[in-house]
Amino acid sequence: MADILIKNAYVLTMDPDLGDLKNGTVVIENGRITEIGKETNENAETIIDAKHSVVMPGLVNTHTHAATTLFRGYADDMQLAEWLERCIWPAEAKVTAEDIYKGSLLACLEMIKSGTTSFADMYFFMDETAKAVELSGLRASLSHGLTELGNKEKGDNDLKEGRRFVRAWQGAAEGRIETMYGPHAPNTCSEEYLAKVREEASRDGARIHIHLLETEAELTEVKEKYGKCSVRLLDDIGFLGPHVLAAHCVWVSDSDMEILRKRGVNISHNVISNMKLASGIAPVHKMLEKGINVSLGTDGCASNNNLDLFEEMKTAALLHKVNTFDPTVLPARQVLEMGTVKGAKALDPETGMLKAGKKADLILVDMRKPHLTPCFDVASHLVYSAKGSDVRTTIVNGKILMDDYKVLALDEQKVMEETQKAVEELVSRVNI
Amino acid sequence: MADILIKNAYVLTMDPDLGDLKNGTVVIENGRITEIGKETNENAETIIDAKHSVVMPGLVNTHTHAATTLFRGYADDMQLAEWLERCIWPAEAKVTAEDIYKGSLLACLEMIKSGTTSFADMYFFMDETAKAVELSGLRASLSHGLTELGNKEKGDNDLKEGRRFVRAWQGAAEGRIETMYGPHAPNTCSEEYLAKVREEASRDGARIHIHLLETEAELTEVKEKYGKCSVRLLDDIGFLGPHVLAAHCVWVSDSDMEILRKRGVNISHNVISNMKLASGIAPVHKMLEKGINVSLGTDGCASNNNLDLFEEMKTAALLHKVNTFDPTVLPARQVLEMGTVKGAKALDPETGMLKAGKKADLILVDMRKPHLTPCFDVASHLVYSAKGSDVRTTIVNGKILMDDYKVLALDEQKVMEETQKAVEELVSRVNI
Repeated sequence: MADILIKNAYVLTMDPDLGDLKNGTVVIENGRITEIGKETNENAETIIDAKHSVVMPGLVNTHTHAATTLFRGYADDMQLAEWLERCIWPAEAKVTAEDIYKGSLLACLEMIKSGTTSFADMYFFMDETAKAVELSGLRASLSHGLTELGNKEKGDNDLKEGRRFVRAWQGAAEGRIETMYGPHAPNTCSEEYLAKVREEASRDGARIHIHLLETEAELTEVKEKYGKCSVRLLDDIGFLGPHVLAAHCVWVSDSDMEILRKRGVNISHNVISNMKLASGIAPVHKMLEKGINVSLGTDGCASNNNLDLFEEMKTAALLHKVNTFDPTVLPARQVLEMGTVKGAKALDPETGMLKAGKKADLILVDMRKPHLTPCFDVASHLVYSAKGSDVRTTIVNGKILMDDYKVLALDEQKVMEETQKAVEELVSRVNI
Repeated sequence: MADILIKNAYVLTMDPDLGDLKNGTVVIENGRITEIGKETNENAETIIDAKHSVVMPGLVNTHTHAATTLFRGYADDMQLAEWLERCIWPAEAKVTAEDIYKGSLLACLEMIKSGTTSFADMYFFMDETAKAVELSGLRASLSHGLTELGNKEKGDNDLKEGRRFVRAWQGAAEGRIETMYGPHAPNTCSEEYLAKVREEASRDGARIHIHLLETEAELTEVKEKYGKCSVRLLDDIGFLGPHVLAAHCVWVSDSDMEILRKRGVNISHNVISNMKLASGIAPVHKMLEKGINVSLGTDGCASNNNLDLFEEMKTAALLHKVNTFDPTVLPARQVLEMGTVKGAKALDPETGMLKAGKKADLILVDMRKPHLTPCFDVASHLVYSAKGSDVRTTIVNGKILMDDYKVLALDEQKVMEETQKAVEELVSRVNI
């Protein structure tokens, strides 16, 4: 007997061979999809009637700082330098490990509720985020953020901590946690430091998560310092490859894109954060045309201000249309790929698609809503009209984390109350 | 005894004199707000405990085509001409009055659920939309769309129908319905026709709803035909004034904006539609700087694809930041003004603000959600993190249309089923 049988579903498999199945079934056993199709003779412990729902791969958030739910709405509508120096950095300086745990747990709760099943994170006190991921049931690729900022000792300490974290948590939580090295960015880490991180990561067989060309300031700084831009700098030290997840890539040139394509680098497009901080518009349609693997990230809640990947999908589809004056770019199906299979390619290719043998990370979207009525095209609705709040059921690694809008994995009220309380105390420390 | 007393609320009054009230109360009687403040001795038939909720003015959607919920997701990601000629127009040609009624009712349902309390509409079979508004309990400013397209007879018939509609429905539904004249646009109506409409509207004391410079094509066409752009054309025939609601205004020049400002024209900014159809980016921050009254519209569901003004607020705040490379433009409070008081100024200045004497159009937003936790700044959350689905209660004209997520005014399931059925029949007629 299988663990879970989902029936009467419209199944958006994201598998090009299988396509969409009307009235389909999905069978889950031992954390994996074992069968998918029109009908099944299989029975299961738990049977989910998915009538009026779409079953699809869980969304993959390829760049966030989960614990920054702590700073959701703490400061907005400001110039980047002022925002960081006057608000975010002073607050981050007072954050405790326990705060990070609570902020991360709140992020996990929000992701479960809005249909995200895995995410890539880079921050500090990462043991706490790992514990939150373990408890919540989500899947995550976690890295301790490494910065030098001209301070060699800090760089060395960060790298030591990053290495400890990579080794301590790799494969933890029934294999739901993967660890990565997280050098912050080419303008906050030196060339030598980046080379060292690359070497350590190779030795550990770990992948790398980095910010890349988020701002014009990085482009200018790196060019002034090295006489070449960030992408060429990284390429010249052999940093780049399919093991690299590069967030933002707003200021990449055509020749940068050519390098990123050739090296098979994975890109995380953070459209809402880039708009909110006025960082610029990444040439996503060009990257996609070149065949670069571009997925979607929310960035942290301090610059978004939520973790809803449905919003990210819609906003990406909209922005690149108006920016290119071409309403045909980033059509709905392509954006869904960015939110699922392309994200999975960056983090865990055994997820992101509903197919026998893949890990069972999937969601049910409730289509019985006024704003999803009538329905001609499921893909269009998922991108242009659905919201995270339309997700009724979230399954990760074959385990039901939310069942018909009820979160099973966490005590929702308690998580909210405790984070609110922790934040009030944190703010009082900052303001002393 | 009053009708409704709302207590324990965080009240975002949008009244500059009153500001926000923590633990505030709102008293409603005979469709109006009679008292607002910290405490009250008033008792009421219905008492709403608004703990953990924000009470704010209902959102005002200043440009939509409600019945086009019928075409939600019917065709996306296409060039404008192909989209109109191959998909939308052939479908519209087969639409019946009953379809319009059902599509409009679905739109009203969606608006009630996502916190919109009034809207401006321009379409056809407008008696049906008016009936839907009457039944739903919403407030609306309705106009029959008038087009000539070089066909004088059609123009005359449209104007006759528009006039009949204006006179038949003005002030109907306990005063919730206002009627307007709806000349389609300066490139689909001749100069003479526009002048005639202006004259009729003056005679009836009715206001005018028009599309203005949505596309570059209109700019080019009008310039070629008249040797001047649409705004100057309208100004030269005395068309413009505070009685005019102009939707889009994407392609306005600095001197156009100066005219619009001088005449006190109300602008409806439709950011999502403009992005999805790749129409362009309206210079909203400049218009706001000049003091022009810019409000928000969703446009129809065929180009959005929903009616959620929370999405519109967030997207407007984001797009103009990245477009100007300035994260300080369109801050949260200003965007909230666009969604409430500025929209109300265009449609009904007795709404849009919570103040004694104003009409009681207001909503309760449920802040007890993971994505709205923690809370430093209510305005930030409403713009950057909330969704239409966070609205728990909607009150229009002092009547509760949705009470704690339950729609009282309409039978939700029935409205969805009937519209779905009507649309299936409509599509089968189109495809014959």
